[in-house]
Amino acid sequence: MTGAASLAGGPACPAPLSSTTRVLLGHGSGGKLSAGLLRDRFLPRFGNPTLAALGDAAVLENPGGRLVVSTDTFVVAPLEFPGGDIGALAVHGTLNDLAMMGAEPRWLTAGFVLEEGLPFDLLDRVLDTMARAAAAAGVPIVAGDTKVVERGKADGMFINTTGIGTQTDAFRPSPERTVVGDAILVSGAIGRHGMAVMAAREGLRFETTITSDTACLVPLVQVLQARLGNAVHCLRDATRGGVATVLNELAQAADVGMMLDEPALPVPGPVAAACAVLGLDPLYVANEGVLVATVAGDQADAALAALRSHDLGRDAVRIGSVIPEHRRLVQLRTAIGGRRIVDMLPGDQLPRIC
Amino acid sequence: MTGAASLAGGPACPAPLSSTTRVLLGHGSGGKLSAGLLRDRFLPRFGNPTLAALGDAAVLENPGGRLVVSTDTFVVAPLEFPGGDIGALAVHGTLNDLAMMGAEPRWLTAGFVLEEGLPFDLLDRVLDTMARAAAAAGVPIVAGDTKVVERGKADGMFINTTGIGTQTDAFRPSPERTVVGDAILVSGAIGRHGMAVMAAREGLRFETTITSDTACLVPLVQVLQARLGNAVHCLRDATRGGVATVLNELAQAADVGMMLDEPALPVPGPVAAACAVLGLDPLYVANEGVLVATVAGDQADAALAALRSHDLGRDAVRIGSVIPEHRRLVQLRTAIGGRRIVDMLPGDQLPRIC
Repeated sequence: MTGAASLAGGPACPAPLSSTTRVLLGHGSGGKLSAGLLRDRFLPRFGNPTLAALGDAAVLENPGGRLVVSTDTFVVAPLEFPGGDIGALAVHGTLNDLAMMGAEPRWLTAGFVLEEGLPFDLLDRVLDTMARAAAAAGVPIVAGDTKVVERGKADGMFINTTGIGTQTDAFRPSPERTVVGDAILVSGAIGRHGMAVMAAREGLRFETTITSDTACLVPLVQVLQARLGNAVHCLRDATRGGVATVLNELAQAADVGMMLDEPALPVPGPVAAACAVLGLDPLYVANEGVLVATVAGDQADAALAALRSHDLGRDAVRIGSVIPEHRRLVQLRTAIGGRRIVDMLPGDQLPRIC
Repeated sequence: MTGAASLAGGPACPAPLSSTTRVLLGHGSGGKLSAGLLRDRFLPRFGNPTLAALGDAAVLENPGGRLVVSTDTFVVAPLEFPGGDIGALAVHGTLNDLAMMGAEPRWLTAGFVLEEGLPFDLLDRVLDTMARAAAAAGVPIVAGDTKVVERGKADGMFINTTGIGTQTDAFRPSPERTVVGDAILVSGAIGRHGMAVMAAREGLRFETTITSDTACLVPLVQVLQARLGNAVHCLRDATRGGVATVLNELAQAADVGMMLDEPALPVPGPVAAACAVLGLDPLYVANEGVLVATVAGDQADAALAALRSHDLGRDAVRIGSVIPEHRRLVQLRTAIGGRRIVDMLPGDQLPRIC
């Protein structure tokens, strides 16, 4: 490949390392290539004084209040899908986990595992999405780490984000605060994220393209907090395992029963159709921009009005009630008047959805 | 595989899911299998009241002081090696990053990517190591996350840890505090971790088994802090890229020159021999339990005495000085009186070392 062969029109000389279009193993070495990756791709997008200090760790002024910390690793396949990408999930998912605890998100960290050969244009798009999502939420990415593994030892890229926020007693939703008589609300249409990723992964084409609902729920929670305060008993984002799994966890944590109304479930037509074709139940399909709330029964209408006042909650509905019977079980009253138990699934309907 | 075949002595029926000996894709689904993995393997080892609350995030009492945050993802191959495993690195590496900032580590989070088929006994050993390492440092693991990817889409397991600590003005080592006249110290023998992993990965056998130096440097830093306070100008752990890379970063950040004495470098005989065989330079080989310190020149002896008073620092030595000439360059005075520049490497001597 050197000398005469390339002069004679054979394979061109390898491009200089600095102009390569893909991630090399050396980008994870801690040497000049690592420094270049950081300088050329990460810092311009995530840049803030804390990150730019490039110490072994970020130094942050303590804002006071209780601290709330959440960590999540994202392994979604494919990396890009209608409505979002792994970068959007990585920022939204962790910010949403903080918001569900009633916390104000303050800082994010980001840890990347890159597969050798990952195209830089794909990496750049994901980093752009992360930067936009973090900036929209007003939360800086203050520390990061990048590792590279050989081709075939990862699947494009995995991203861990850890979020730190602060919480006060004025707003402290928590699973065990759910009590009999509470209304169970969802903030929007369910099943979109899981079906969007599934369709993208399997190359399925439906009449209507289903887009992921990935979104930062922080502003929606702020509306609820402002109008209801601690009459909001519990908030959960209905990600892996969907609404059914979240409600089962909640029923167990609070030692209560739950009764859902099937006709009230906000399942968009295309999601219902796709689920029917594939034999899936939309109650178990992951969402990335939908929250489940339990609120004091007499505040249900106020809570729905608050949710619907924000674009992310315009399709909010009440889907059921917390009941004293059949504690630790979630039941569903079907459209034809029957009842069935909505159990936790043993394994996965849809793996690698986030 | 069912019925007559297994009764007749053919392959046995698959074991029930609950007694499987390996990680299944369903363990990452957020359903019953995920809950079981958490209940049976993670909580018993990492258990503490904060983690056991199992909310979307951990709630922590704010200790005051500035906050320091570090994140690191570990992708070492192989997962186990003489002297340690990926779990030891994941805890020590992040605690050490906090310690290098002069912070007192308070909490850790842990995010796992598991490859389908990972044997549970290997996972259990790694989790045991993490639990022991965190307990020894008195730092609880307060939040976690587990994802599972298909066989061939990861390499056994990857672990992200994020650490949060607190820092005060009484002890604030930082790269830019390094000044001309400082002594450059290392706390122990260099090159062990990288060579131990390299030997394990490639199946190399040397006369003496080289063991990793992976260790929590927090107690060693506490000794330095108690004796010297802010006469300690900068601390860095010499991980990826080794002592040479750390010193180059430091020379650039502080805009100073550095002169090292080759005969003073503490390279153990077996490491030197293995490096010679493989054509590697021990100055670039990763360490996981060695720190580099710059201290006020007139405090060099006191700093060495302090380091040597602790088992982790018993081989501490001065390896050079910070000089005004050739700013932003690291030079080495060789054993035969010559000088050479110790540059940063473009890529990796040894990939996937941590």
